[in-house]
Amino acid sequence: MSEILNNFLSCNKEYSSNFGTKKDLAIQPSKRVAILTCMDARLDPAKFVGLVEGDAHIIRNAGGRVSDDAVRSLLISFKLLNTNEWFVIHHTDCGMEKFSNDDIDAQFNLAESESINWLTFTDNEKSVLEDVQLLKDHPLVPSEIIIHGFIYNCSTGLLHKVC
Amino acid sequence: MSEILNNFLSCNKEYSSNFGTKKDLAIQPSKRVAILTCMDARLDPAKFVGLVEGDAHIIRNAGGRVSDDAVRSLLISFKLLNTNEWFVIHHTDCGMEKFSNDDIDAQFNLAESESINWLTFTDNEKSVLEDVQLLKDHPLVPSEIIIHGFIYNCSTGLLHKVC
Repeated sequence: MSEILNNFLSCNKEYSSNFGTKKDLAIQPSKRVAILTCMDARLDPAKFVGLVEGDAHIIRNAGGRVSDDAVRSLLISFKLLNTNEWFVIHHTDCGMEKFSNDDIDAQFNLAESESINWLTFTDNEKSVLEDVQLLKDHPLVPSEIIIHGFIYNCSTGLLHKVC
Repeated sequence: MSEILNNFLSCNKEYSSNFGTKKDLAIQPSKRVAILTCMDARLDPAKFVGLVEGDAHIIRNAGGRVSDDAVRSLLISFKLLNTNEWFVIHHTDCGMEKFSNDDIDAQFNLAESESINWLTFTDNEKSVLEDVQLLKDHPLVPSEIIIHGFIYNCSTGLLHKVC
């Protein structure tokens, strides 16, 4: 067993031993919120906006981008599980801003014909605006869903509202 | 301003005021781990395996499925940011097991020609095995990456190892 796995299982046993009323939580997020943000290790959305288990859907990928899969998750979130307010949260010092699609293709030795859309971006505020707009324009997203766009600052922990 | 947003910003201010050494965290996850799990509101992977900010990439979508976008994120995770151990964690009582693709298409009034692959599943253990295998078989995922498969029990908080 890897050291990491051993440590995870030990922490998990401890977590389970104090599970309390979390066993009775409903599948629907109690705050009716979904957050889409980056996978970045420095970000803990539950901590930085004050959530506990049961409160909100959390969707994360490289960049916090509105990919097809993020849209799939958000559509399920509102239609089956009743969320009505969404937050798109990118962050400063993001890997998706440091590298270009060509850079990453090159790291994997991909030929031009094999190129992958890595969803990198060059302007953080613009990437948030574009992603929020993608959701607002999506034919299956109803207009009554409130959609916010933010940038999390990795140096201060503060959220900056973009839209 | 919505009540939710007001509350988030107030909690965020508090979080930022105790930010301490988190301002100096590196972009690379210190434990060299990436976790792929479900967006479900009841799951807090940082809490259930004992992580703090800076430790691990966390990727989340509806079901914790190995979608194209999850693969994109994991490839970036190891190639650009040096992770070498991945955890795929599905969970009991998952919405992706309660509904079929046809059910969800019907909720959105989609015609057969507009059908979306919602990545639902009918057998939880099998879905974990299949997702881990997808990663192991992926041409851009090197064999030296350790990949674990788990199911998180929403009634107990315990992780059950599948593979």
